[in-house]
Amino acid sequence: MAQAKRVVLASRPVGEPKASDFRIEDYALPTPGEGQVLLRTIWLSLDPYMRGRMSEGPSYAAPVPIGGVMEGGTVCEVIASNNPSSDGQGLRKIDPKLGPVSTAVGVLGMPGMTAYTGLLEIGKPQPGETVVVAAASGAVGSAVGQIANIKGARAVGIAGGKEKCDYVKRELGFDDCLDHRDPNLAAKLKEACPQGIDVYFENVGGAVFEAVFPLLNTFARIPVCGLIAQYNDTEPKAPKWASSMMRSVLTKRLTIRGFIFRDFAARHEDFLRDMSQWVREGKVKHREFVTEGLDSAPGAFMGLLKGANFGKQLVRVGPDKA
Amino acid sequence: MAQAKRVVLASRPVGEPKASDFRIEDYALPTPGEGQVLLRTIWLSLDPYMRGRMSEGPSYAAPVPIGGVMEGGTVCEVIASNNPSSDGQGLRKIDPKLGPVSTAVGVLGMPGMTAYTGLLEIGKPQPGETVVVAAASGAVGSAVGQIANIKGARAVGIAGGKEKCDYVKRELGFDDCLDHRDPNLAAKLKEACPQGIDVYFENVGGAVFEAVFPLLNTFARIPVCGLIAQYNDTEPKAPKWASSMMRSVLTKRLTIRGFIFRDFAARHEDFLRDMSQWVREGKVKHREFVTEGLDSAPGAFMGLLKGANFGKQLVRVGPDKA
Repeated sequence: MAQAKRVVLASRPVGEPKASDFRIEDYALPTPGEGQVLLRTIWLSLDPYMRGRMSEGPSYAAPVPIGGVMEGGTVCEVIASNNPSSDGQGLRKIDPKLGPVSTAVGVLGMPGMTAYTGLLEIGKPQPGETVVVAAASGAVGSAVGQIANIKGARAVGIAGGKEKCDYVKRELGFDDCLDHRDPNLAAKLKEACPQGIDVYFENVGGAVFEAVFPLLNTFARIPVCGLIAQYNDTEPKAPKWASSMMRSVLTKRLTIRGFIFRDFAARHEDFLRDMSQWVREGKVKHREFVTEGLDSAPGAFMGLLKGANFGKQLVRVGPDKA
Repeated sequence: MAQAKRVVLASRPVGEPKASDFRIEDYALPTPGEGQVLLRTIWLSLDPYMRGRMSEGPSYAAPVPIGGVMEGGTVCEVIASNNPSSDGQGLRKIDPKLGPVSTAVGVLGMPGMTAYTGLLEIGKPQPGETVVVAAASGAVGSAVGQIANIKGARAVGIAGGKEKCDYVKRELGFDDCLDHRDPNLAAKLKEACPQGIDVYFENVGGAVFEAVFPLLNTFARIPVCGLIAQYNDTEPKAPKWASSMMRSVLTKRLTIRGFIFRDFAARHEDFLRDMSQWVREGKVKHREFVTEGLDSAPGAFMGLLKGANFGKQLVRVGPDKA
């Protein structure tokens, strides 16, 4: 019988996930039943939200049970199907004409659509406004800043280290990029945003939000899609700005709104059309960070939470053509 | 020379305003200059936002200087005019056919429009949803709950004491009303909202928000127009929910948005049309709480911040007809 491999959750992490929280298992390849399809995985996407599903707390998706398979977005080949319709539940047919298939879990997939919908539907950047986004060399942040530029806004990124910041400024064309490890981040950010901040695309939380908060302009918009800096917190920390937050919401008439890309499913066709065109025209550049083989997934995921990746984190599980 | 009277800010309050923070002065009635009008005040409106202008902190309006006149919304008669246009800056002609002129600073004025625009433009209550509002017997809260009912939503109010709660339930028709002084407020609120909370119209902050926060449903909306429970705070307090707030914004996809009624100036005609009709039809009831004479204004204002009023706080400064 053919063998397959899976990554399961061995134990719930306390703080940072460690290697022993995962287990890689071999198992017998099942035969697809009625209405099922058998898929061969080519690409596995690793994304920060997966940390949330390792914990028991309430979130928008049910937690993975202990011993359960760690789920993630994938690009696959259908190798057997008892499902005559082209799209089974949770499946979407990829159009390879839009770009390399790996982009279906990157710039043309969930991360790209998170950037597109959060920025355009909630952030609504206007020409001349200032948009700030962290994790600016990553899959979501890189798209946010480039779309902001397309819409005529200034894009200021925050990233980890000089190499990433240089890439964000020189390759992606952000107006500025600051290192979040800089002890003077708050002062540097103020310099980089002389007109204040109109849109803060929140995907990290923690110290970056603290630096951003006093610089927010009246009517600033804050789409919130992630808080990666806080995912490993073992106890709630009351950030410095918390006590004055609601007061600022009132006096500055801020809009703070959480979302996930699926909330804007109705915009999926617009997204694919616009984003694939921007990628073709070179207006939105993206970068992939690939590790090889499913065995590498737990380590790559632990690295992702620390910013060890440089670009969209992918695991190549199998070749494009079997 | 004719004499007039004014209330000036004698000193900036530390914590609760006290009588000595105000001073009542007589002064010579000025003659209106080019483009000016001379007004005789009939009604003075007292509203919680005025507390913010007594402090120096940043807000949406400049602070009143020490020795400066405490400004407020008024209903006046024009007794001399060097301004041929019907509406000078900051003036609006009142249509007495819409209701008693005092309603122009109440249910048909700023408080009513705050309720109307915040609830309909940000809260967007759907039939069957649950709307919670505090200060439910007050000018804004009473309108919020009744408009929620008109839109087919359940309205749960919070007010200070049995008498106000009875009024909110029996007269205004809210589905329920809880006493914010009840030490079991959080548990009672949970009982009163078995389907959770879809819209929390935030006008008080503090302990009420703490009780509301864990009950918010996915996609809940929180229009924020006031934080009266916090206005007298002398130092920032980190509320219990602060540390988990952004996490809940993310996992529950909450929308939190600060506003003032002027942000929705484009809806003013809709507001006047709908609200005056609802008042005529008895669908929106309102209650006025009147003190007599400008001398009573400082005391009435200090009372307002403690919930001593029961309904819209007004000061009758002069008779309807001179």
